[in-house]
Amino acid sequence: MKKVLMMFAAAVMFSVAAYSGETLKSPDGNLELDFRLDERGAPVYNLSYKGSPVVLDSRMGFLLVFNNDPSMHRMPYAGRFGGPWSLYDGFSMADSKTSSFDETWTPVWGEEAEIRNHYNELAVTLKQESGRIMIVRFRLYDDGLGFRYEFPAENALTYFLISEEVTEFALAGDHLAWWLPGDYDTQEYNYTESRLSEVRKLVDRARTANASQAAVPGVSVQTSLQMKTDDGLYVNIHEAEVVNFPTANLELDDENMKLRVWLTPDAQGVKGRMQAPCQSPWRTVMVVDDARKVLASRLILNLNEPCALEDVSWIHPVKYMGVWWEMITNKSLWSYTNDFPSVQLGKTDYSAAKPHGRHGANNENVRRYIDFAAENHFDALLIEGWNEGWEDWFGHQKDYVFDFVTPYPDFDLPGLNAYAHSKGIRLIMHHESSSSTVNYERHIDKAYDLMNEYGYDAVKSGYVGDIIPYGEHHYSQPIINHYALCIKKAAEKHIMVNAHEAVRPTGLCRTYPNMIGNESAMGTEFRSDINPGHTTILPFTRLQGGPMDYTPGIFEMDMSKLNPRERGHMRMTICNQLGLYVTFYSPLQMAADLPEHYAPFMDAFQFIKDVAVEWAK
Amino acid sequence: MKKVLMMFAAAVMFSVAAYSGETLKSPDGNLELDFRLDERGAPVYNLSYKGSPVVLDSRMGFLLVFNNDPSMHRMPYAGRFGGPWSLYDGFSMADSKTSSFDETWTPVWGEEAEIRNHYNELAVTLKQESGRIMIVRFRLYDDGLGFRYEFPAENALTYFLISEEVTEFALAGDHLAWWLPGDYDTQEYNYTESRLSEVRKLVDRARTANASQAAVPGVSVQTSLQMKTDDGLYVNIHEAEVVNFPTANLELDDENMKLRVWLTPDAQGVKGRMQAPCQSPWRTVMVVDDARKVLASRLILNLNEPCALEDVSWIHPVKYMGVWWEMITNKSLWSYTNDFPSVQLGKTDYSAAKPHGRHGANNENVRRYIDFAAENHFDALLIEGWNEGWEDWFGHQKDYVFDFVTPYPDFDLPGLNAYAHSKGIRLIMHHESSSSTVNYERHIDKAYDLMNEYGYDAVKSGYVGDIIPYGEHHYSQPIINHYALCIKKAAEKHIMVNAHEAVRPTGLCRTYPNMIGNESAMGTEFRSDINPGHTTILPFTRLQGGPMDYTPGIFEMDMSKLNPRERGHMRMTICNQLGLYVTFYSPLQMAADLPEHYAPFMDAFQFIKDVAVEWAK
Repeated sequence: MKKVLMMFAAAVMFSVAAYSGETLKSPDGNLELDFRLDERGAPVYNLSYKGSPVVLDSRMGFLLVFNNDPSMHRMPYAGRFGGPWSLYDGFSMADSKTSSFDETWTPVWGEEAEIRNHYNELAVTLKQESGRIMIVRFRLYDDGLGFRYEFPAENALTYFLISEEVTEFALAGDHLAWWLPGDYDTQEYNYTESRLSEVRKLVDRARTANASQAAVPGVSVQTSLQMKTDDGLYVNIHEAEVVNFPTANLELDDENMKLRVWLTPDAQGVKGRMQAPCQSPWRTVMVVDDARKVLASRLILNLNEPCALEDVSWIHPVKYMGVWWEMITNKSLWSYTNDFPSVQLGKTDYSAAKPHGRHGANNENVRRYIDFAAENHFDALLIEGWNEGWEDWFGHQKDYVFDFVTPYPDFDLPGLNAYAHSKGIRLIMHHESSSSTVNYERHIDKAYDLMNEYGYDAVKSGYVGDIIPYGEHHYSQPIINHYALCIKKAAEKHIMVNAHEAVRPTGLCRTYPNMIGNESAMGTEFRSDINPGHTTILPFTRLQGGPMDYTPGIFEMDMSKLNPRERGHMRMTICNQLGLYVTFYSPLQMAADLPEHYAPFMDAFQFIKDVAVEWAK
Repeated sequence: MKKVLMMFAAAVMFSVAAYSGETLKSPDGNLELDFRLDERGAPVYNLSYKGSPVVLDSRMGFLLVFNNDPSMHRMPYAGRFGGPWSLYDGFSMADSKTSSFDETWTPVWGEEAEIRNHYNELAVTLKQESGRIMIVRFRLYDDGLGFRYEFPAENALTYFLISEEVTEFALAGDHLAWWLPGDYDTQEYNYTESRLSEVRKLVDRARTANASQAAVPGVSVQTSLQMKTDDGLYVNIHEAEVVNFPTANLELDDENMKLRVWLTPDAQGVKGRMQAPCQSPWRTVMVVDDARKVLASRLILNLNEPCALEDVSWIHPVKYMGVWWEMITNKSLWSYTNDFPSVQLGKTDYSAAKPHGRHGANNENVRRYIDFAAENHFDALLIEGWNEGWEDWFGHQKDYVFDFVTPYPDFDLPGLNAYAHSKGIRLIMHHESSSSTVNYERHIDKAYDLMNEYGYDAVKSGYVGDIIPYGEHHYSQPIINHYALCIKKAAEKHIMVNAHEAVRPTGLCRTYPNMIGNESAMGTEFRSDINPGHTTILPFTRLQGGPMDYTPGIFEMDMSKLNPRERGHMRMTICNQLGLYVTFYSPLQMAADLPEHYAPFMDAFQFIKDVAVEWAK
């Protein structure tokens, strides 16, 4: 009897109740967020702009794995909403706080000297009968919404595994969209411009070949997703501050024009391994009435944590050239010799090997580039293929693929660095991990120490091929953590990082401004595969989270001029290439072509020399 | 036409032909190995003892994954034996060499001062029409056979993935066997003694609960597998020198009494990622007519590479006690406080926490143990639970679970080491990785440096729980490589390693004699779960590959004396415990009980003090 009475009392006190909700407006009042709990205690939000719906009622929360967290067993769940695996219903409103924030901060580098961070915030504390607590924090800016989920320490929930996130974005129409097919491993695709209703029939053909790719099932697209409504609104969905969490793709229900988050699984299919206190990334919905405002938006950066580094004096813009394009175009090779069927580092004796004569990163060629780069006042020269192991680095998912410290016999690492420094430029280090992340971590301390020893202050890292640990994806949570570890270790050693094939940036360069570049999109190296117009879309999409090392500046468009066996033309003009230095802000800018291709066009090249990398200083 | 002629010529030259075979005898002539290729070019071996079959005709080789290695595409395979995924048929004999070897070597530690390595060898070079080469090397000793597969550098095969190994052991009868159920993650089971025909009905119940276990499908057992034939022969199947390869289990066909190797898969189900030149481990079949010869056999060690370390002066036997058993028996705890629902290292502030008062590794208790151990002339004292993180280390598959360097507030690491040294003993470090191997590697250099700084020269490592990277197993190839990396790094820092829950040893302590112990079997900590007789079996099975840190020496058999809430009695006598110091050779021997339990039996304890750890010096 007593037990029944207690249960009745509990039911009365903590019953799931529909909660009519809260409203939050942007500082200028144009954007309005509504939040409520429905009759099942399920959180629902919607977003409107000047009274018109942009995001219709959309569900929120997570589906959990039934694991052994105590909160799974704390309440009898039968017949109630909020089953043990539900973080998407069965909530009551425990608390609700609104606040405002208006500060201006100074980025270490960027397109402006100051950035205003001005939002109204609503934080709702949701509680389930089991004692599990989930806070949803909404920040509404004049140009868009960000929201995330937080799990405080004081919480019945401690260790939980995410089966799926069920956050929705119910769109108000069949918008025009510029999209990439959903993928757990790459963003190196051309954009497709189509109505959302057409994605279904176009998504498979949009998924062109890549060294590492894994289709998100169903009708799926990636973020950031840029859309334009028939009313002329620009709506852009992305995420900010992806830390210790997998990357989100978007699954499309094209009957109802709803998008839903679809997280990247790890090797066991788990989509997030969480330990409270913790939080999800910010899900962002930018809403502006002018395309230029998309480019001007600092929504993503503003949602990230302030700079974590005390001393940033060592971080600086870099205009560079590279012993790189000649390998991409097959004029020369990264590798040194054809003597070995395969390489076992430490056992394979390169000193006895016969060079095949096409090794790009040899002393003479590198000095030639150093001379040209120095004469033309570049800051640095990237050299790829400097280190042992390139003979069989690709296509074998090799574990011990590079050691990141041992140069080829014809690459005098100390001497070339000294030569470069004597000419006033630095060399840029190259760490192609071949996606063997455990191997990279095993060597990274010595690799960074080598950089410090010889005066490299920037590294281009790469993740070509399928990820090791086997079964993980480029965008899985453990690999997100790997990228972050490399950035943090680099910061400790005063090293700037330009990470290629890594996860698309989500504003972490505010917190770690030594992350001066990423690739994570189809860049110049895709040559004639790049659709015209691609570079007009990227600033609205890929560049939302952080700058891109697009590697522009190609002057010789005929690929057969680099290697007679190559076919294809770059599908752009020199003027287009020059324009990219203006339209693509990046603190790291490359003039990617070969010195001999610039030589006939020194008037045009002068623009590249003159154009600022940093505009406000 | 030319192409057809060439193909015809090739077919004539390299046609698969049955090869009537070779015979190899042991030095004393009692064991005889026959090897041949059958009409499909499939390698077959058998083994007999004094004319009677021990292993009947048994198949050999591998099934490969059809990957992009050039050798997959080199020959048209249609209609031929030796399809592209076959390394089990389609061979011709390209070469055959016999040799003898007779040397005596000196182990750094062991049961004898010298070990004789005396065998006759047959190396057969098998070649497929594609140009793929596989060498099978047989070594026949007076007490058994070892064979392995080698893939030389000169080979059409370079990068290949193993789908399964198809090595068989066709037994001559339904032998009596002492076996453990096949498992990818643990050997911590009681042995079952039964006929092989009974394994099927007993294997599931043999698989008692464990913190990390994954049943090998079907009717499977582990190595080493000890059997006794009705004729009184002792046959023991195991492996030696498991390096960069997964661990083998044995699958039983109990209609035909055949065992077949069943390798441990990695996270993607691949059972070996190979790059020629490379080799498999040795598969070993010990055959002796007297049980004592099983214990005397040095087959496993002899098949391993000689010592790789130049300086071994820092390696020494260790007789030790531990602040450990009191936590195993729940008298005290590894953890420090109940204040936190979970721990986030670096954020959780232990200095402000209220100790729960049951932390075993506190200064006062540790000094008490140091005093007792020093008075009684022990070499060292292990302390578990000295470091931050034990509050939630277990059951959450936590990634950043320990940092291996930060002590609890009540563990004065420098002071206790100084105190121990002043009394003439060392402390033994403890690195419980909680199976989070990537995390352990991220910290291991600093962790080993800390040991060097404070005079620890030995570490007990542990791998409790499911392995991270997710999806890998304790016995998967990448994790085999992890264990080896820890041993090698330890050797560089002059550190001895006692690895618990790691892979069962296969003789690598010959090559890396700083590996002074493993657990990899059900040891003392399983308390009343241990069947009587368990320790009489272990020397024939688990101890074949290397010593075991069995942690004997329990004098107080009533568990409630340690904690009134515990039940159960150790099912052995003090005499039994003393006997283990003689029957279980190990360069690392523990007196596992508490000082207060030895105090009433100092006469018996005197035996533990007196018994040698090293017998021949």
